[in-house]
Amino acid sequence: MAYLELNALSTVLCGSFSAKIFLPEMNGLALDDRKHERKYPVLWLLHNEGGMALDFTAMPVEKCAVENGIFIIAPDAQHSLCSNMAYGPKYENFLSKEFPAICRNNLPISGKAEDNWIGGIGTGAYGAVKAALKYPDVFSGCVAVDGIFDMDKICKKALEGGETDICHTEESLRAVFGDIGEFAGSGNDIFTLARQKRSGSFCFALSGKTKYREESIRIAEIVKGTVIEAGNYADEDLAFYEAIKKALDWVCKGKGE
Amino acid sequence: MAYLELNALSTVLCGSFSAKIFLPEMNGLALDDRKHERKYPVLWLLHNEGGMALDFTAMPVEKCAVENGIFIIAPDAQHSLCSNMAYGPKYENFLSKEFPAICRNNLPISGKAEDNWIGGIGTGAYGAVKAALKYPDVFSGCVAVDGIFDMDKICKKALEGGETDICHTEESLRAVFGDIGEFAGSGNDIFTLARQKRSGSFCFALSGKTKYREESIRIAEIVKGTVIEAGNYADEDLAFYEAIKKALDWVCKGKGE
Amino acid sequence: MAYLELNALSTVLCGSFSAKIFLPEMNGLALDDRKHERKYPVLWLLHNEGGMALDFTAMPVEKCAVENGIFIIAPDAQHSLCSNMAYGPKYENFLSKEFPAICRNNLPISGKAEDNWIGGIGTGAYGAVKAALKYPDVFSGCVAVDGIFDMDKICKKALEGGETDICHTEESLRAVFGDIGEFAGSGNDIFTLARQKRSGSFCFALSGKTKYREESIRIAEIVKGTVIEAGNYADEDLAFYEAIKKALDWVCKGKGE
Amino acid sequence: MAYLELNALSTVLCGSFSAKIFLPEMNGLALDDRKHERKYPVLWLLHNEGGMALDFTAMPVEKCAVENGIFIIAPDAQHSLCSNMAYGPKYENFLSKEFPAICRNNLPISGKAEDNWIGGIGTGAYGAVKAALKYPDVFSGCVAVDGIFDMDKICKKALEGGETDICHTEESLRAVFGDIGEFAGSGNDIFTLARQKRSGSFCFALSGKTKYREESIRIAEIVKGTVIEAGNYADEDLAFYEAIKKALDWVCKGKGE
Repeated sequence: MAYLELNALSTVLCGSFSAKIFLPEMNGLALDDRKHERKYPVLWLLHNEGGMALDFTAMPVEKCAVENGIFIIAPDAQHSLCSNMAYGPKYENFLSKEFPAICRNNLPISGKAEDNWIGGIGTGAYGAVKAALKYPDVFSGCVAVDGIFDMDKICKKALEGGETDICHTEESLRAVFGDIGEFAGSGNDIFTLARQKRSGSFCFALSGKTKYREESIRIAEIVKGTVIEAGNYADEDLAFYEAIKKALDWVCKGKGE
Repeated sequence: MAYLELNALSTVLCGSFSAKIFLPEMNGLALDDRKHERKYPVLWLLHNEGGMALDFTAMPVEKCAVENGIFIIAPDAQHSLCSNMAYGPKYENFLSKEFPAICRNNLPISGKAEDNWIGGIGTGAYGAVKAALKYPDVFSGCVAVDGIFDMDKICKKALEGGETDICHTEESLRAVFGDIGEFAGSGNDIFTLARQKRSGSFCFALSGKTKYREESIRIAEIVKGTVIEAGNYADEDLAFYEAIKKALDWVCKGKGE
Repeated sequence: MAYLELNALSTVLCGSFSAKIFLPEMNGLALDDRKHERKYPVLWLLHNEGGMALDFTAMPVEKCAVENGIFIIAPDAQHSLCSNMAYGPKYENFLSKEFPAICRNNLPISGKAEDNWIGGIGTGAYGAVKAALKYPDVFSGCVAVDGIFDMDKICKKALEGGETDICHTEESLRAVFGDIGEFAGSGNDIFTLARQKRSGSFCFALSGKTKYREESIRIAEIVKGTVIEAGNYADEDLAFYEAIKKALDWVCKGKGE
Repeated sequence: MAYLELNALSTVLCGSFSAKIFLPEMNGLALDDRKHERKYPVLWLLHNEGGMALDFTAMPVEKCAVENGIFIIAPDAQHSLCSNMAYGPKYENFLSKEFPAICRNNLPISGKAEDNWIGGIGTGAYGAVKAALKYPDVFSGCVAVDGIFDMDKICKKALEGGETDICHTEESLRAVFGDIGEFAGSGNDIFTLARQKRSGSFCFALSGKTKYREESIRIAEIVKGTVIEAGNYADEDLAFYEAIKKALDWVCKGKGE
């Protein structure tokens, strides 16, 4: 298991951050390469709200890195929803600019957009799709697993005093998005961004146990993305395992073309 | 080196958290104790803003745990200033209630206030002193190293558009404290809290390189705390090292009495 | 994800060791329990030769701990084959005595044999079955996944200059077992030990991709153990995933009775 | 704190290994460098017997990396004494060839001997000096802190049934060195190797608390190395801290010239 834990300082976040990094096997890294100039493709991977990058160790992510000879890099995103917080760290800036630069300075990864994909699970998928839509010069492809996309609906629920189901309250959503009464059509509204899509290929994987299925279908239609569904399993863990595996395969093998 | 890294879920924080735990050596843990009922004293330790619990590995913290047969437990506090954020996680609640309970369920540590001290560095010292003042039934003693206490001054600087020097902007201070124009006298104002001190012993250690020296002296007077200063070293790292060491010694050996 | 990394000193190993610990979720840990006296069952889990405890993060182990409210504790075993090395650390002693005692001193785990099971993968299964056979007063049950048991065959291969397929050479096998020409019938021969079985229940899980299948069947017959096979999957990762999952379910739910 | 934990597979060790890596701060890494082709100097650092690479987190190692803009990379060496074990992994080969190659493939570090130094503490210093003497084409400098060098004396003690004081028994020393009755003059005898020194600069730092002081002086004379002593402190921790700090300064600043 080739695996790195990175702790370092970020100027954008004004503090320390952590990331988990899954590497290709060392033979994939061509040890006899004397010049050490080869640059590997990379998948940037964002965890769900309430989780942390460590969660990916329990998914078939490391295997994907090994089998496909790519780096998979998962930063901790705390409660930022992978966004530039109105009252807090500018996580979107960190994620799309500083963090890749820090990693490129320390790891043999390619800086070309065609070698950089971004992905996520749950609200991490929201962050990934947003980043792919806004920074196609950085990320050429995107994979979303059981994505939670309709933040307007969630903000409205919070304003009405209901459960958001994503580990956020009205106050913490305000910290992220500012005026949550005016979310629709804002720069954080993924459906608005999707309609302005410039380039990039998108994949939406569904495990069968998500209750946000319809949101993935809806956004896939707008961006003309691929929808992948896991097989029918009695054991829903196996379905989730397969959804992730298929999504990662899609990334690594031809990106759906 | 006896050392634990803990990752777990918090209901209060509505998500995952991390902590670093320094343990007494195993012989200190009395391996022949068949009943495993001994409960150890614990020092809860809070890092500076912009840092993380990992920072304590580079300080003589583990040595203190070993030599004194205590647990030292350091949680990551992100950018919460160890406070109940107006727009974000209620870190003070987590720190003073849920987190000790989680640890007591998993580790052989005492729940008696007399065996529980809290400490911190920089803004972590602010959090530690605040917790010790507000929860004397949980923490009976407090040690602050190079503390940064005058949050009112920092909020004012931020409002005037100046540098806060603690990795916070006007917006991120609002996320923590809410209305930062009305900080003085609020429940987050450490000087106000200090004047209402009910019990507990306090120690303020200074390394010589802090520019907040006067704040420690001021608050020490109010709470009738001990002030400890490191020796005179050409090398300021040694001074810092000694300040921490003396502060921890104070905690472990008689708590200054 | 409730997860601990432990680093500590061992007297038996005469040095530092590492372990990964998967915990029940905190609500499973009954936070309102004021006395913190509840003791949880524990599964001790041994990795395959050439691997490390970290490998278990990529398997459905954490999930098993959470769903069943048990601790799962996986120590690093290096190249010891979980044995008392003829020329090296006495890992079997460590594993069956000191390590459980260290963990019981630090974690809320039960010391009763009925609450202690041991398991492993590959050569780790060899270590687990050996420990369960030799220390039924410590471990009441055992689960072996794709076990590699016939060390005599492996020693003979090594002596003939062939590949052992378990990351060991003739020299390193000598370091573990001493005189590898006289292995059969020795205290490290699992088939000899199996015939002297005193108590305990055993489960042998097979993923379909192991080439040591026959060895599991053979030893299961001797100890009257349960054999579990994963379903038929085109994707052999899913088969392996399911074998582990079923094995852990067997441990947690009724132990096959 | 810029800090990496690496877990990966080694062909030479036939299994997994771990290493701790201390990085220059990110600004030291020149984020605006678009080509990411800069290669940093590196200090390879070996822990004492009975310890692990994690021990270096408690020493001023990370600070040295940051202040001097170098990588410091510390692998776990288990009980190998950093040697090609007669009955076990060929750690010396790993350390001097495969491990640097793995790291160069993954990190922006220089492969030139002039940018590669090796150091260690206690028996790690033995390993470091041995590697520097045998592989001057890989490591151009060496720093030894409180080194334990006279393995012949230790082997003799073990043969006489005495305490070795380095966490080794007669058997475990045989596993490392083979025939320990014929150690003097062998390829593992550092004094023999020292007399054949071809190139490289050496520094021997002493904290005042080592009982092996004379061995450092003796070998320093043979290799014409620098001896550095910590100041006189009542607190021997400060002496040790300073010895390490001075040793690392020697490495980073001009290497004693």
